[in-house]
Amino acid sequence: MAIQVIVLNGGSSSGKSGIARCLQAVLLDPWLVFGTDTLVQAMPMSLQTSAAGIEFAQDGEVIVGPEFRALEAAWIAGIAAMAHAGARVIADEVFIGGAASQQRWKDALGPLHVLWVGVRCDAGVAAGRELARGDRITGMAASQADLVHHGVAYDLQVDTTHSEALECAQAIAARLR
Amino acid sequence: MAIQVIVLNGGSSSGKSGIARCLQAVLLDPWLVFGTDTLVQAMPMSLQTSAAGIEFAQDGEVIVGPEFRALEAAWIAGIAAMAHAGARVIADEVFIGGAASQQRWKDALGPLHVLWVGVRCDAGVAAGRELARGDRITGMAASQADLVHHGVAYDLQVDTTHSEALECAQAIAARLR
Amino acid sequence: MAIQVIVLNGGSSSGKSGIARCLQAVLLDPWLVFGTDTLVQAMPMSLQTSAAGIEFAQDGEVIVGPEFRALEAAWIAGIAAMAHAGARVIADEVFIGGAASQQRWKDALGPLHVLWVGVRCDAGVAAGRELARGDRITGMAASQADLVHHGVAYDLQVDTTHSEALECAQAIAARLR
Amino acid sequence: MAIQVIVLNGGSSSGKSGIARCLQAVLLDPWLVFGTDTLVQAMPMSLQTSAAGIEFAQDGEVIVGPEFRALEAAWIAGIAAMAHAGARVIADEVFIGGAASQQRWKDALGPLHVLWVGVRCDAGVAAGRELARGDRITGMAASQADLVHHGVAYDLQVDTTHSEALECAQAIAARLR
Repeated sequence: MAIQVIVLNGGSSSGKSGIARCLQAVLLDPWLVFGTDTLVQAMPMSLQTSAAGIEFAQDGEVIVGPEFRALEAAWIAGIAAMAHAGARVIADEVFIGGAASQQRWKDALGPLHVLWVGVRCDAGVAAGRELARGDRITGMAASQADLVHHGVAYDLQVDTTHSEALECAQAIAARLR
Repeated sequence: MAIQVIVLNGGSSSGKSGIARCLQAVLLDPWLVFGTDTLVQAMPMSLQTSAAGIEFAQDGEVIVGPEFRALEAAWIAGIAAMAHAGARVIADEVFIGGAASQQRWKDALGPLHVLWVGVRCDAGVAAGRELARGDRITGMAASQADLVHHGVAYDLQVDTTHSEALECAQAIAARLR
Repeated sequence: MAIQVIVLNGGSSSGKSGIARCLQAVLLDPWLVFGTDTLVQAMPMSLQTSAAGIEFAQDGEVIVGPEFRALEAAWIAGIAAMAHAGARVIADEVFIGGAASQQRWKDALGPLHVLWVGVRCDAGVAAGRELARGDRITGMAASQADLVHHGVAYDLQVDTTHSEALECAQAIAARLR
Repeated sequence: MAIQVIVLNGGSSSGKSGIARCLQAVLLDPWLVFGTDTLVQAMPMSLQTSAAGIEFAQDGEVIVGPEFRALEAAWIAGIAAMAHAGARVIADEVFIGGAASQQRWKDALGPLHVLWVGVRCDAGVAAGRELARGDRITGMAASQADLVHHGVAYDLQVDTTHSEALECAQAIAARLR
């Protein structure tokens, strides 16, 4: 009953990617990390900046269109297939749709053993870290901080407001033993 | 009988990624582009620089270990699942093992409709482009230029030595209609 | 009377950066490469996307404001000082203002020995390479291809339409001996 | 007597770059940010990986050679000239040589008004953040954490162990009024 997929869900600048890299370093087996960014970068440039695909509004709101949704469904099916084929996978996700987003993943992952992890960060602190990262579009950190957790059920939650990424990764790793 | 997967195989600095981006721009439907780089970046840092994973020798030789091979097999299964789920996928590949690499992909892709494209580039020209890109490790372009095509069967070959990426993409796109 | 500064001027996607890296590889002495990109990335994010700083319109037009101009003048003075202090410098530039841009550089470089190089590329070919690079904003290659050369005087011109970056670099290097 | 140059000195992964970006956001005037990375990336690839230039040992030690030192001296002279020409500059530095490194900057900056800022971070915490960033070479954070502050005199010190980059930037900004 070993965990096959770890889903990290949190807002932009909540520190998911750092936790994912620390998890890869502290876990003995090799884990693959894939995120929403992997999918977006795989898309045609036209979908990366359009209403049919994904749009990043000036205020940080993210709007996702029907063509993005269709490709995302295939992408999640691909992640599930990798896990079925024996790869351990960490999914670095932003559940813009909250519980509905989680349901899409649940349906696709089916019988796989999944650890659902919520990555929290105070909205103000996340907004400061967004500034420190020098992202071109600001506002995503604040607008997503609570939104992405609405109605989502977790096995474990971590909070990067006062904890380092490595500490959060160690807490998650402890649940895998 | 529409093509579901385009496999672009060529050596480092042969121009595959540019052709893939041009294909995304000229094809009407949205195509996802995934490459060996996507997989390598998803791996733990330890596997990115070790004999068990993948190593880039000072002379440009690439050595792939058993743990890399196991994760790669799951990755290819994932690509196949994405195509079965309806996504059109361009795979930007380097068949280090020549015909054996192609066979691994053929086995995984099964009944999917695949267009096999060889991307050629004169070894000397590719080495010059590697220099112009400012890659940290040089020598891969020259060492892979012929190696990756050994025993590989193609539906179509393009050569970037004297043709632009966009022209090559248009030639490939013409085969999809 | 050895050359102390090489100024490469050309439009976006004309291949200047590749030529600069090849020059660093073929020249015996170490040369530093700085470009407009270095300056833009050093600016506050607010100036990278505003009328007072620099704006990249959807059609590829680049609009430069007064605050950008003031910082650019200081930047060019800094490049001149580096060369006076003994560093050999390659400036990778886009003379949006044509002859007026060159005059600003001439005034700042003063008595330094400069090799002025025009980097040409057919507008259509440059637009295709822009597509292949996957830049978020397209149109700059076509709009700048001729514009940046208006009234500019060169010691040497190279054309990347049918010549590789390395060949162009070798032609430039031959002028330094 | 307004400050013209802010020098941020701290070890790798101590959070200097994040503080620099937050400073650009909170300060009213536009400030340019340049770092050691800017210089290293401007160098020929051969100097980026050699004993004459700069080497990054497997354990994170950084060794700097004579050609690097000569180019660095010209670079610092260039930064000073930019400030004399009216640009406000934030230098994001790693004083590998401690007091000797500071002296080189003092000699070059001469009569300019400089704010010397030490950026501290607990060595263990910095090492964890290095892991979270996914740097290819680890060990720099731990080896530089104290080393770079030996004998260096500051106007102000900040510590990112328990403070966010934005808070540190606000403390520095308060000293400029």
